[in-house]
Amino acid sequence: MSDLLQQLDAVLESRKNAGDADSSYVASLHKKGLNKILEKVGEEATEVILAAKDAENGGDRQAMIAETADLWFHSLVMLSHLGADSQDVLRELGRRFGLSGLEEKAARPNND
Amino acid sequence: MSDLLQQLDAVLESRKNAGDADSSYVASLHKKGLNKILEKVGEEATEVILAAKDAENGGDRQAMIAETADLWFHSLVMLSHLGADSQDVLRELGRRFGLSGLEEKAARPNND
Amino acid sequence: MSDLLQQLDAVLESRKNAGDADSSYVASLHKKGLNKILEKVGEEATEVILAAKDAENGGDRQAMIAETADLWFHSLVMLSHLGADSQDVLRELGRRFGLSGLEEKAARPNND
Amino acid sequence: MSDLLQQLDAVLESRKNAGDADSSYVASLHKKGLNKILEKVGEEATEVILAAKDAENGGDRQAMIAETADLWFHSLVMLSHLGADSQDVLRELGRRFGLSGLEEKAARPNND
Repeated sequence: MSDLLQQLDAVLESRKNAGDADSSYVASLHKKGLNKILEKVGEEATEVILAAKDAENGGDRQAMIAETADLWFHSLVMLSHLGADSQDVLRELGRRFGLSGLEEKAARPNND
Repeated sequence: MSDLLQQLDAVLESRKNAGDADSSYVASLHKKGLNKILEKVGEEATEVILAAKDAENGGDRQAMIAETADLWFHSLVMLSHLGADSQDVLRELGRRFGLSGLEEKAARPNND
Repeated sequence: MSDLLQQLDAVLESRKNAGDADSSYVASLHKKGLNKILEKVGEEATEVILAAKDAENGGDRQAMIAETADLWFHSLVMLSHLGADSQDVLRELGRRFGLSGLEEKAARPNND
Repeated sequence: MSDLLQQLDAVLESRKNAGDADSSYVASLHKKGLNKILEKVGEEATEVILAAKDAENGGDRQAMIAETADLWFHSLVMLSHLGADSQDVLRELGRRFGLSGLEEKAARPNND
């Protein structure tokens, strides 16, 4: 799964620029603007929470995974809307945890 | 950045099982339970939304990236708490978008 | 505006029991169940936050008031779904702040 | 409970203007600014959702009522921060439902 988020960034970027809101959900979100994208982020966060509570009570764990995918997806659209992408987020996570993301973990002398 | 999320899964798994809530934020979240983890998911989603609005109004884009990292991080803790991980989410995203996550994109005949 | 929330409780209670999801939004929410009602609470909370940020940046203050009305309304539907109402919430707020809600503030010997 | 929200508006207004953030939670929220207030609105919305799910699964209904009080309270602080109050919200709810809030329901010829 290694480069999937990068591939997804490329898909999102191409759809952002397609300018064809009729045929693309992503293009329609960009056209409606940041508030609509952020409403989706908020909605999906709520659905993640509900699905996790249901999983805790014996419900379907796959539903929680699917809702988390929705949440990450809409946060990628938000990043794209504001000129950032998944790699910025991964870089930030890597910095915090001293992880390089490379298969052979490089020395990180400046990992503050 | 390719395997960073997998590396982070491994870090989270080791801290989940460390059982030393004093020394690890992740262990303390697991000990407090799912509601505490989901409260953090909700809080971070709100902070993402606020940071994105501030970025739109000329604020710091890096703050939005850092808040998104917080949101993804806490959703990874949630997944871990319920026996799932980042790869489940990436597999779901890959399935939806017909992406393999491999460098050479495999044919996907059953990409429903 | 004194008894408006009590009047609204009565409206919500009558619509809850109407059992006619086609003609009433409230009845349809109850029929879809608690998760759908809570999704609306989460959505409206997000919309309140966005409208407040927009009001801060010179946007329409009335939009923020309308979104807050949506949030309170859907939390009233949630309370009704679980057998509670606005008066339970007001009683809790009154207890915290030492307010009676009566025009002449009564003595509150048991205001723990 | 009829005038409790109006009394609470008055309490919030006096604390807003007290300018003594050390002694008052409300004054400290205003001092920290709108983002901090909205973070609290988002947090409390999440806690309402979690408490409602727990109430559905046999948990304490009073906890859900207390979390709803927290949510309404912080939305009142937000309204106060932006120059509005509970009566604006009740007026909006009354307008939508054709309710006057008066004990004798007045005729509402212009209830669009």
